[in-house]
Order: sequence, then structure tokens, then C-alpha cells
Amino acid sequence: MAQKFNTISFLSDYGQKDEFVGVVHSVIRSIAPHARVIDITHGIAPQGIRAGALALARAASYLSPGVVLAVVDPTVGTSRRAIAIEVGDGASYLVGPDNGIFGPIVGLVGGATRAIELTSTDHRLPSAGGSTFDGRDIFAPAAAHICNGVSLSKLGTPISIASLMPTVIPVSQKVDNQITAEVIWVDHYGNCQLNVDPADIADFTSTLTMQTLNATTSGMVVASYSEIPVGRAGLLVDSSGLLSIAVANGSAAAEFDIHEGDEVTLTPSETDNSQRVGITPRNQVA
Amino acid sequence: MAQKFNTISFLSDYGQKDEFVGVVHSVIRSIAPHARVIDITHGIAPQGIRAGALALARAASYLSPGVVLAVVDPTVGTSRRAIAIEVGDGASYLVGPDNGIFGPIVGLVGGATRAIELTSTDHRLPSAGGSTFDGRDIFAPAAAHICNGVSLSKLGTPISIASLMPTVIPVSQKVDNQITAEVIWVDHYGNCQLNVDPADIADFTSTLTMQTLNATTSGMVVASYSEIPVGRAGLLVDSSGLLSIAVANGSAAAEFDIHEGDEVTLTPSETDNSQRVGITPRNQVA
Amino acid sequence: MAQKFNTISFLSDYGQKDEFVGVVHSVIRSIAPHARVIDITHGIAPQGIRAGALALARAASYLSPGVVLAVVDPTVGTSRRAIAIEVGDGASYLVGPDNGIFGPIVGLVGGATRAIELTSTDHRLPSAGGSTFDGRDIFAPAAAHICNGVSLSKLGTPISIASLMPTVIPVSQKVDNQITAEVIWVDHYGNCQLNVDPADIADFTSTLTMQTLNATTSGMVVASYSEIPVGRAGLLVDSSGLLSIAVANGSAAAEFDIHEGDEVTLTPSETDNSQRVGITPRNQVA
Repeated sequence: MAQKFNTISFLSDYGQKDEFVGVVHSVIRSIAPHARVIDITHGIAPQGIRAGALALARAASYLSPGVVLAVVDPTVGTSRRAIAIEVGDGASYLVGPDNGIFGPIVGLVGGATRAIELTSTDHRLPSAGGSTFDGRDIFAPAAAHICNGVSLSKLGTPISIASLMPTVIPVSQKVDNQITAEVIWVDHYGNCQLNVDPADIADFTSTLTMQTLNATTSGMVVASYSEIPVGRAGLLVDSSGLLSIAVANGSAAAEFDIHEGDEVTLTPSETDNSQRVGITPRNQVA
Repeated sequence: MAQKFNTISFLSDYGQKDEFVGVVHSVIRSIAPHARVIDITHGIAPQGIRAGALALARAASYLSPGVVLAVVDPTVGTSRRAIAIEVGDGASYLVGPDNGIFGPIVGLVGGATRAIELTSTDHRLPSAGGSTFDGRDIFAPAAAHICNGVSLSKLGTPISIASLMPTVIPVSQKVDNQITAEVIWVDHYGNCQLNVDPADIADFTSTLTMQTLNATTSGMVVASYSEIPVGRAGLLVDSSGLLSIAVANGSAAAEFDIHEGDEVTLTPSETDNSQRVGITPRNQVA
Repeated sequence: MAQKFNTISFLSDYGQKDEFVGVVHSVIRSIAPHARVIDITHGIAPQGIRAGALALARAASYLSPGVVLAVVDPTVGTSRRAIAIEVGDGASYLVGPDNGIFGPIVGLVGGATRAIELTSTDHRLPSAGGSTFDGRDIFAPAAAHICNGVSLSKLGTPISIASLMPTVIPVSQKVDNQITAEVIWVDHYGNCQLNVDPADIADFTSTLTMQTLNATTSGMVVASYSEIPVGRAGLLVDSSGLLSIAVANGSAAAEFDIHEGDEVTLTPSETDNSQRVGITPRNQVA
């Protein structure tokens, strides 16, 4: 059987504390020793299907052809389907639970061309216990077998592409001069990505008023983190091409108490009434 | 010299903050460039020999043949021995400190067939400083040399298998209708593994009363996390085949303030008196 | 074009939460599939140029020949230069921002032999958004191209070695019987490395008085962590060959509230007046 792929790109919410990631790597090594596993991240918050789906989407255009293995799986052990999705007529495959984690990446690569439920018990590991670690017992073996050239028809039963679980990604709204947006990602540095296309603020002033759940401030639209004056907030186009809230040499998330899922409204400011970071309404005394 | 192995499975308490893990990988790369290093985990709590031993045991049956390098080493620099253990008459080798970290995994793979103390100074790196980083200076080189086919007799001096440091793993006790158990692992999700075989509760009701250090609640025995009613606790067989305490979409450890090493007692409940999570004794007002 | 290197040693402040590290690995995989990426660490504190520079220096003599990719880059997107430095007449190359992160490692390997600014747009990825992720768009491609044998003259424009940004590393001072030092590294275990050569205390007593920002205590000079009496502090030569403050089975940083950058003074103690850990001045009541 001819080897088909030599790269598995692996994302999960397994974290770094336990042996979960290492065991998945080991299972792949035992079935497809030639495959290289690239860890996209295992720092997705536990059960964060949407966060995982968005991280896959941000990484999508940089991944090597092969298998994308994504395991964020709060309903492990239930009747939710274990699936493999073919994209690009076999250019790549996506393996994981059918819970919406693949919605955005499938859209970005032009849609699914085929999908199966992973039903073949010949291509699973017998579980050492309960059904709580499908990454080890079902998904990693399937990803490795696909690298080895095993066909989808051997791994399971065809399912309808239309039946795949969709992913709900919020869309921002612009009414008159106000954009109502959502924080869809807070990164390691505390930068807060909004679901706002920079084109949407093209007709705004160069300073915007930002109303978050816990603060109101204003921020200049800048081209790099370093253009943000120390002690103030700024807005810039981030590496995914979306607007992001940042502060100079610090964490916007910590400064303004922003979390993923929070609503943010943006309006043009006539004058730069930006306040020094830290002097936000919730901190004001009387 | 014929290459003997091409996989090193590596576990430690080195964490992700510093360059410790990267330096060990680099040392292996320089001695055995063909070897692939699979990181089992480096998130073992500092000096957590038992936690490391249990993580190795849980991973054991999934590891690739080759060398297991395990470094949790609070007594680095003392007279504790640096060792290599042969298992399966040379099927695999275990390299690390002689402090009990290999006890459970050796038992699981059928016992040691040979052991040496790593005394050969020709197969170490000269330390750049004090003797505080044997992972870099002694263990990584030994693991790499074994992959290269260097025999144990070249790497050190035979020692008695009986002299290897044992590992003390607590055993649960069942007296009448009460099981006194210990939390032996709290994972990244907050699931709390007990040293209890599911067979021990086969004659119990399907709801158990759980008395932890800081709470009393009851939990149903379920087959998957999703069967646990929101706001309640459950007990299920985890991926290692042991009983584990979980809550729906949350952390049982955080909810009930459970830590590794805590005692838990289990008794059958006549009726389901399960309380909503959060309404535990320690939180009750008057 | 002949492959030149097969190892890239990668350090950053990207953390483990997001897909940054995985995307950089993926970019390298797509350009130089034969290259192995060894993660030195991605746990450098955000924007910690000096911490990154010191971690690279500590790892330097263990790294495989090839490319060192180091990205701690608070001024990404500004006019700070993106650079590649040749060391050892082509024995290895360093790729990253020109902000001082390479100062110590360049010094340790005998100085730079050539340097360029990475100006070739043919050897970058087009950014999907703003200029906030040069690790993905500029540095990873350059590192991969160097592994593939692309010459520095193709990747950019020669710059003067003398123009490279220096790194300011503090030097300890010894006046009479007092050493004024700085904590230059607090590791995962809470050990606190000082910029003090053990030779500087050769004429001191075997017990020193340590005055930190928040505590005064004394510590014995010991050869291993295990020689430190439980509940007391000690000083030992660490794996980099510098003096380090430690406590038995615990974190000196937590015990004495020590942070990187803190000043510490060391003086000889006539008698061992070491106090039990925890009974430090700041904790004393009246």
C-alpha cells in the first residue's frame, strides 16, 4: 500500500499537563511511523469547539497537505459521530468529532468533497477503559491509516456532506456609524480580535470609541503595535486580516477585562478623547 | 555500529517555560540524529515522582519500542543512581534516576530483564556547571547512545534488579459497603481518577455517595461525560479503566476542591440524593 | 540546490495557547520539508528580549548546527530590521529581529562573520493581514530557505556587523566583602540564577547573607539541591555555571518573592544565622 501523506497537523484542547498529546503522537508513530506530526496547538480552552474551529481557520492556509486531526470533544462517548472529511478531492483530510470544529476550515478550502463516519472497528484501538479518549482510540488511528493510504471506504460509511454539523460564527453588524462586534479571540499577548473587517471602518475617523463590557475608551487606528502611545489603546489589522484591540507593551484583555465572546461597539470619535489605560469607568471613584 | 532504535519517549517535570526540554532534544539530536523524540509530557508537577510514574504507566502500552527517558529528579546531584533498565530482553530501555519513577511501567511490561548504573564518563557530557541538570549531561546522552546501539555493558555497571527503588502506589480498600480510595490523578479537565477498579462497585447502587476532603455529594455511575446532568457529579470508567469523578462541562476538581492525594470514600446511595454542584456542605450557609 | 542544514532551533515568546508555534512549524515544513524543528522554548515572557537572549545563550553550546530562529519581537511591524546573522563562517545562522536577542549567543560562538537585512520579498510570504506576525511571514521562510541552501546574498542586503543591536546584560560588582548582583533568571522550579561567578565567592565563608528586595536570610553554599536543609535556603552552582539561590523541595522565588531583574546582595556570614524559610522580615509580626 502506497504511503499517501507524511504530515498530520494536530490541534486539541488536551493541554500540556497530562500525557494525552504524547499518547496520540505515540499511537500515530506505531501505525504510520513515517508521518510527521505538527502540533498546531493544544492550548484551546477545554471544550472550546468554536475557539478550536477559529484557530484551525487562522492556520488553514499555512498547513501542509495531509491530515488535519482536531480533537475538542465535549460529547466524547455519546452518539455524536466520529468523522473524516475529504477536501479538494483528496488533497487533504480532516479527522475528528462531528461537532462543528471543521466548519470554518472546510469553508476556507473550498468545501468538502466527501465524508464518512469512522465506523470500522478494524481501524480503531480497543479502548483500555471507558469511551473517554477517542483521540487515542479512534481519531489518531484513522489519521495514521489515511497517511498510510487506507481509503475512506475502508475506514467507514459514507455520510452526507449536508449532514455535517455546522459552526455558528457571529457576524458583526454596522448600523449608521456604529459597529456591534464580538471578541472572537484573545491571544497569549492579550490582543483582542474582533469579527470586523478593516474595510468596515474605512469611512470612520482615525480614532474610534470602543465600548466593551467593562470599559469605554478610545483608540487610534495604527499600523503596528509600536505606534500605540504608551498607556493608551489602539486598533490594528492583525495577522488574520481582522481588527484587533491592543495596548502598548501590555495586554488589552487584562487592561479592559475583555474575554472571548464579549460584545464590543465601535463608533468614530470626533476628537481623540482617548484615556490613559487604567482610567476606565469601572475603575473611577465617584 | 547498527542503529538499534529510532524513538525516544520523553517525560519530565521540566515545564514549558525554560529551555530544559529543548536542550535535551538538542543533545539527543547531536548524538543520535536519526532518533525521533516524542514528548509524553513535561507538565508533571515539580518533583512529582509518583505523578510521573503514573503518567508513564498510563502511556505504557501505547509507546513505540525504543527508549523511555523519564526525568523527575529532586535528588539530582546526590548519590542516587542514574540508571538504565532493560525490559523485554531488550525490546525497550528505560533511562532516568533510580527514584521509583519506573516502578509501575516496569511492572506493566513484565518486569526488568537487566539494569545498570550509568557510570561511563565517556558517554556523558561534561557539565558546564554544577550537577543540577543530569537530564542534559547524563540521561539524554545515554538514551541517544542506546538508540545508536551502544550496549548497556559499555554505558555502566550491572546492578541488581532487586535493588531498584520501588514505587509506593496506594491501594483502595473495600470494607462492607464502603470503599476508601485516593485521588491518584487530577487531569487538565479537572477529572479526578481514583484507584478504584469498576468491578469493586459492581454490587453497588447506580448512585454513590462520595465523601471528599471538602464536600459530600452523590453521583450517578455513567458511561460518558455527557450523561452527567448539568450541575451534578458523576462517576465513570476513564480511559485507563479506573473510576473517575467528573462534572458536566466543568472541573470536578475545582467544584469539589479535590487535589491529587486526597482521600475519597464511596458508599451506595439508596436514593439519588445528588445535590446540585456548588451546593456542597462547605458552601452552605447555616 | 543542495540542502545545507536539517535542523532549525526555534525559540519565541509565542506561548502554547495559540496556533503561532504550529503555524511557524507548518510554514517551515512547506518550504524545507526535510528540516527538523527543535523547540528550544516558547515560554519566554511576552516581549522578554533579554530573557530570550539569555535562554539562547544557556542553550548555545548544545544546539545542532543549522539555523537558530528566535522571535521575541515587541517592535514587529516597525522599521526595526529583520536580519540573518552568519556565525563561524557559515557553520550556523541566526534569524530574527535586530533587537538584541542574538547578542549573547553571537558572543559565545565567536562573533558574527556576516549579516544581512532580510529584504527579499521573493523569500517572504505575503501577509494575510497587517504586519504583526513576521515569524510566519518573514523569519520562518528565511530560516527554511537557508536550510535549503539559499545564500544570504539572495535573501537580503549586507549590513554592518557593528550595526547590530547590542544586548545589555548586567554585570555584578564586588566591593570589599559585598557582591551586588542581579537575578537574571527565575526558572520553572523557582531557582534564582544570579550574574555571579562562583569564583567570586571563593574567599567567602561557606554561609552567605543574602539580601533580596523583600527578605534577608542566609544560605549555605552547597553542591546539590538535596544538601539544603529543609526549610532553609542555599546557594549552588547551577547548570550554566552561575550561582543560584534555591530552597529544599520548593521555590526560592515564591519563598522570598524574588523576580527576574531584582537586585541581590551577598556578604559572608561569620556564623550560620540562617533563618527558617517563611520567617523572613516581611512576614514578621512586630
